[in-house]
Amino acid sequence: MSTGPRYLALADELGALIHSGALRAGDRLPSVRQTCQTRHLSPATVFQAYYLLESRGLVSAAPRSGYFVNALPLGASPRTSQPSAQPGPVAVSELVFEVLGASSAAALLPLGSAFPAATLFPLEPLRRALQAGMRKLEPAQITAELPLGHEGLRRQIALRYLRLGISMAPDEIVLTNGALEALNLCLQVLTRPGDAVLIEAPGFYAALQALERLGLRAIEVPTHAGEGADLDAMAALIAEHRPKACWLMTSFQNPLGSLMPADKKRALVALLAGAGIPLIEDDVYAELHHGPDAALPAKAYAPQGQVLHCGSFSKCLAPGYRVGWAAPGPYLRQLQRLKLMSSLGVSLPAQAGLNEYLQGGAYDAHLRRLRAALASQQQAMLAALQAQLPAGARMTRPRGGYFIWVELPAACDALLLQRQLLAEGISTAPGPIFSARAEFRHCLRLNSGHPWDARMAAGIARLGALAKAQLAP
Amino acid sequence: MSTGPRYLALADELGALIHSGALRAGDRLPSVRQTCQTRHLSPATVFQAYYLLESRGLVSAAPRSGYFVNALPLGASPRTSQPSAQPGPVAVSELVFEVLGASSAAALLPLGSAFPAATLFPLEPLRRALQAGMRKLEPAQITAELPLGHEGLRRQIALRYLRLGISMAPDEIVLTNGALEALNLCLQVLTRPGDAVLIEAPGFYAALQALERLGLRAIEVPTHAGEGADLDAMAALIAEHRPKACWLMTSFQNPLGSLMPADKKRALVALLAGAGIPLIEDDVYAELHHGPDAALPAKAYAPQGQVLHCGSFSKCLAPGYRVGWAAPGPYLRQLQRLKLMSSLGVSLPAQAGLNEYLQGGAYDAHLRRLRAALASQQQAMLAALQAQLPAGARMTRPRGGYFIWVELPAACDALLLQRQLLAEGISTAPGPIFSARAEFRHCLRLNSGHPWDARMAAGIARLGALAKAQLAP
Repeated sequence: MSTGPRYLALADELGALIHSGALRAGDRLPSVRQTCQTRHLSPATVFQAYYLLESRGLVSAAPRSGYFVNALPLGASPRTSQPSAQPGPVAVSELVFEVLGASSAAALLPLGSAFPAATLFPLEPLRRALQAGMRKLEPAQITAELPLGHEGLRRQIALRYLRLGISMAPDEIVLTNGALEALNLCLQVLTRPGDAVLIEAPGFYAALQALERLGLRAIEVPTHAGEGADLDAMAALIAEHRPKACWLMTSFQNPLGSLMPADKKRALVALLAGAGIPLIEDDVYAELHHGPDAALPAKAYAPQGQVLHCGSFSKCLAPGYRVGWAAPGPYLRQLQRLKLMSSLGVSLPAQAGLNEYLQGGAYDAHLRRLRAALASQQQAMLAALQAQLPAGARMTRPRGGYFIWVELPAACDALLLQRQLLAEGISTAPGPIFSARAEFRHCLRLNSGHPWDARMAAGIARLGALAKAQLAP
Repeated sequence: MSTGPRYLALADELGALIHSGALRAGDRLPSVRQTCQTRHLSPATVFQAYYLLESRGLVSAAPRSGYFVNALPLGASPRTSQPSAQPGPVAVSELVFEVLGASSAAALLPLGSAFPAATLFPLEPLRRALQAGMRKLEPAQITAELPLGHEGLRRQIALRYLRLGISMAPDEIVLTNGALEALNLCLQVLTRPGDAVLIEAPGFYAALQALERLGLRAIEVPTHAGEGADLDAMAALIAEHRPKACWLMTSFQNPLGSLMPADKKRALVALLAGAGIPLIEDDVYAELHHGPDAALPAKAYAPQGQVLHCGSFSKCLAPGYRVGWAAPGPYLRQLQRLKLMSSLGVSLPAQAGLNEYLQGGAYDAHLRRLRAALASQQQAMLAALQAQLPAGARMTRPRGGYFIWVELPAACDALLLQRQLLAEGISTAPGPIFSARAEFRHCLRLNSGHPWDARMAAGIARLGALAKAQLAP
């Protein structure tokens, strides 16, 4: 997949080996001379790759002996969740608004934010693309393209599907006001009030709110912090409760960061197809894999099946533009109509600008920089957490995205912690907002999407200190 | 209200007198010399005003004797509608999609379109404002301003309310993805499935679709083509059916173009307040008054009351930007939350661009040009309709907006006419799509928002010929 500079490809490849455990703490990297020979690279290229790995905190140089793999912060991973087995109504909205409302001030240290730092995005090139895209727009397009969305942009999105090996016509894509609208529309197409829907636990609070708003019951599936929803448990829940839909984030799940492996995605698709249950696949973090290889969505394993795949540019390119989409497969026509009735269409300047930017060909270079930044920020935050959190704390090490899920000792109260930290100018996202029944009270989600600096380090130190204080006798 | 060139103010003033009937066909305008004296204007200014009135088709020059008021196309107005008195479920969506789907091709003569011509909007200044607005946006604003919307833009909207004498804080305004999202959110805040909602008949098809989608029952209120909903009939329907909300377009209603007079708006507000029924006031054509004076919304007569006022820039400034708003009064918090859950926020480039444009101060000059164009296009289309339609046809002469509602002789079939005209490359909006029960079969809505030219004239001629052919024995 890597088409950028050679040093970056090499660094990404070695970084992935380290993350996967193929290279372990203390292992020596091949010498620069060896690597030059085996890979036909110049010494400058190999040095540059090794420097980058060092700056990501993955390796250290030992004078005269070469580069060695660092110990990753290897505290235990959180355990597979054990949510309530009975489906039930969702009642989380009030809590979510209370927490988010308090956390939105721009001056806060944004450990609880849902977005990466805006400075990680190509704001200036996007502005230029916006201008150029609008200049090219014919007046007649303005109203004619509104219902279906900008054709060029749908084509660009279709091309990115094609790169993943998924055949998709531009006409099969419904542009929406962010992926959140796509999710809401998909749920409305598939369900009626009172229906049950399978979701992960913990799960994205906006999905929980959507369920609550539409009067749906949540069936929370036990979810592994590394590999996502437990399919055996899901099969049992399906047999017992006959849900009408399943909503999952299969890659770099919010808040766990879990990545369902390819084989498991295949099995998921087979399980749901067998039960006749459509899958709403929320895949907004797909582009944010830290290693060189993209994770295929479940959609790739069911090209003709009932997978409603939802994506967005909000997390990987253009926050604030509010451009997302759904590729709803057999539900295309229903979704198109529901969108027409709900909001007519997506803001045209944003669509024209994104189309222009994507056509320009700079997207992949931006993504490589963004992924490298997210990977290195995550390493730094994990190291700080390892040093500061109380003994017994567990945390995820996602291979993509920018969330870290922390499981504190059971006696900790993340809602109390959230209020205490807020008083010191630090936001966090406490576990209960990710649960249909306010569970995960000793857990929290941290955002590692902001450049690591002294302020971030101080914030993690305060988090650790306050958590320890809660445990003091 | 007029702050533009003096000749324009004079032409608007005289034009309004003509439209209101104070000046009638054959009346002589005051001579240029008289007008110069009484109004302290230069002869050039007065001549420019009279030329403009002439170009609008309102007056004619008679050599050596001055300017005379033309006969307006004074066919009868449509009668007050008599919709079914029983509330019932709405089942219009399928027909609306069928008609609109067939009518969206850019090559059609857009007599059925819902938008004015894009060329009537300041596309180039808007593009520059978009660029400047984005340049001024701080990166931190991008995510911080998303939930509530761009503060500067909310302030600009609040200032426009203030010009109407309505006190409104920026924080009382909820920005939405067009007024359509605002309408949908208002209905969701006020109703539950099965509730009844008062609406005009004929009424805007998207509102009918919203009712259908939310499982609401429509109570269609008899509506006068000139002055809007019949309040006596409304009072009786309220007493009988206890609706949960009322949704009206009080100024330049779609499709009638009716304008509820100020006193009637006051009475409407009192009637609904007495019954405890909130009013959703859809006011997206407010800025498009043809005469010099703005029409105050019902909101102005109930500043603290239960009026959820909805506006938009889509019809008066920036089609395709999808920026609308609601000023929901006491329902502010509920609406804010529902919007957060539905689509999070509005596209930021569009908001930043509109804020910049409005701050720049060119909006009023644009509106004056737009209003003059819409008034003169309406005159031309009315004259053509008068000449071409079969005897017995009635039509509205709205004082704002760009719709003309035509009531053909009862034997005509507007759905058949729509298909016949479509085959000739001409779109129309047949009456049944504006009714909860597919009534108004002999009516249609025409769009006079496009520059009048030979192609438009030929389209109206074909409409007339096909309607007459339907009546032939």
